[in-house]
Amino acid sequence: PLEARYDYNKIATKIIKKLIGKREWTIWRYKEILPIKNFSKIISLNEGGTALQKGARLAERFGIKNLYLKDETRNPTWSFKDRGSSVGISKALEIGAGAVGCVSTGNMAASMAAYAAKAGIKCVILIPSGTPLEKVVQMLICGAEVISIEKPYPEIYEMGLRLSKEHGIYWIHADAPMRIEGQKTSSYEICEQLGWNVPDKVIIPTSSGGNISAHWKGWKELSLIGFIEQFPSMVSIQAEGCCPIVKAFKDRKDFIEPLKKARTIAQSISNPDPPSGQRVLSLLKESNGIAEAVSDRELLDAQKILAETEGIFAEPAGAASIAGLKKLLEKGLINKYEKVVCVITGAGLKDMKSPMK
Amino acid sequence: PLEARYDYNKIATKIIKKLIGKREWTIWRYKEILPIKNFSKIISLNEGGTALQKGARLAERFGIKNLYLKDETRNPTWSFKDRGSSVGISKALEIGAGAVGCVSTGNMAASMAAYAAKAGIKCVILIPSGTPLEKVVQMLICGAEVISIEKPYPEIYEMGLRLSKEHGIYWIHADAPMRIEGQKTSSYEICEQLGWNVPDKVIIPTSSGGNISAHWKGWKELSLIGFIEQFPSMVSIQAEGCCPIVKAFKDRKDFIEPLKKARTIAQSISNPDPPSGQRVLSLLKESNGIAEAVSDRELLDAQKILAETEGIFAEPAGAASIAGLKKLLEKGLINKYEKVVCVITGAGLKDMKSPMK
Repeated sequence: PLEARYDYNKIATKIIKKLIGKREWTIWRYKEILPIKNFSKIISLNEGGTALQKGARLAERFGIKNLYLKDETRNPTWSFKDRGSSVGISKALEIGAGAVGCVSTGNMAASMAAYAAKAGIKCVILIPSGTPLEKVVQMLICGAEVISIEKPYPEIYEMGLRLSKEHGIYWIHADAPMRIEGQKTSSYEICEQLGWNVPDKVIIPTSSGGNISAHWKGWKELSLIGFIEQFPSMVSIQAEGCCPIVKAFKDRKDFIEPLKKARTIAQSISNPDPPSGQRVLSLLKESNGIAEAVSDRELLDAQKILAETEGIFAEPAGAASIAGLKKLLEKGLINKYEKVVCVITGAGLKDMKSPMK
Repeated sequence: PLEARYDYNKIATKIIKKLIGKREWTIWRYKEILPIKNFSKIISLNEGGTALQKGARLAERFGIKNLYLKDETRNPTWSFKDRGSSVGISKALEIGAGAVGCVSTGNMAASMAAYAAKAGIKCVILIPSGTPLEKVVQMLICGAEVISIEKPYPEIYEMGLRLSKEHGIYWIHADAPMRIEGQKTSSYEICEQLGWNVPDKVIIPTSSGGNISAHWKGWKELSLIGFIEQFPSMVSIQAEGCCPIVKAFKDRKDFIEPLKKARTIAQSISNPDPPSGQRVLSLLKESNGIAEAVSDRELLDAQKILAETEGIFAEPAGAASIAGLKKLLEKGLINKYEKVVCVITGAGLKDMKSPMK
């Protein structure tokens, strides 16, 4: 995938911790390293600036010392997707696009629809037929044009790219460069919230691979602008029923073998052919990272443990980082003295059926 | 209801705008005016500090000039209730209570359960039998003890108070003093977010009357500590199918006639016998306020208009302030040059059935 690059030496002279400290807690706090030139085009719903909670009770339960929870359920549409939607739709306005679009059935579609509404720009969302009405409501209520297509997901994905090209619709998919730019701000926030320090491990639920790639880009940039001198190890967690990245990592392969079908309750991390898969494999190598898979049972348990110790109600995919932490502690791949950040990617209200089980 | 009072002259010498400006954006930003002495007892999930958005596209749709949206859907359990739960449960710890409780089927119960989980304190919630499982899940997943009772709501309410007394459970209901203290911080935030200025109207969805009472207490205190010199007019919005306060206000009565039954889709504002009703009638008088009722149709329309112009997905009750604004503009009771704040009290994901209609 394409990636936004900056003149980091030049930015290093302009971006000043003290100045940042005085700004509002949204992703635009770090505007020097975001790819929007015309600030009047920024479309913001005050995304980002999400709490980094000390997870004291959960840490005690797991027997570890330094656990932090990056609570992305606090975003405008209750998932991390809002960071990327804000940058993506601001860019769409900057370049004068008449419409935006994506293929998604879940968090990304809801987020896109909300930001397009705020911007007053047309939003086209392609979904596979049979998508539950509850998921569609959140797109429709924001005024998006939702097109239901009776084809397999990969074909709809291709149709989306063609539609974008033929009709000049600015397409913002899961690992689109602008989405990565927005999502990388989560690392800037974690670093600042830790007093501009670096954790040992950052654990992230992984689907397309876009979010963990964005996080890693954030840490690398923080080093390039001279804010940090070391790096965290990145930890990618997938659901057992959809873990092509974990499989390639464990088999020491350099490429991803796509699955035919995902079999997991964690809908938000169920991409069987992750477009950023290879990017994730290389960042895991580069950061001395880990990839691990967890079962649906472990996801549901983690969802419950997180809620009953810390009061955070995540969707099963959103609690994958907690399930992964538990497993990696048991395996001895994370030790109890490490400073760990678990990213909680989306809210429990997004999927009420799984916890009802 | 009981009300917390302070030595405002003394506080006025201690509370300094500049100092506040340097603190984190949670309700504890205003700790001088919150009733917790032992700060080590504070249980916080970073509640409050919610965005005050300029509603430019919605304002244009309604033909008004200065519209702000206080987005309480951004709280930890996605409603304004978290402000009061944080203060209430912190107080429970401060006085050494062994358990907390309330009677609620909705936002308050979900919020209480989350904060009790974070505190590691037992939480008892009484609900009427027949409460939809989806609502109960959010309490159970946080580890609350949920007791389902086959009796009318007022009887369960009485049972709760007895249970509290007999078993030493610290009860935190909708207009409990500590809840009011937490919720009043919304006014402090609005005032600070407007540059310590005062809007002309603050519009609030009303059920028990606790929240609008809390908001009004906030504005009065801001005057008592010398931060402001004038007051907003408070506007109370109820659903037509459950509007005992509006009825009493329009009939110029000093007391509330309770309803037998509420008939509205807006579950979060469906208290037929509002315990703070009289308090609301007097604050409406004191603030030169207005009370208005809106139909379920108007609530659903407002929910849609809010989502498609501003990208904020509120539950129907949460959008009552928008429905009320529309109606009061049409009636000429609010004019288009006034500076209006609409409080959006809870998230749309809380009730997916209504918008599906």
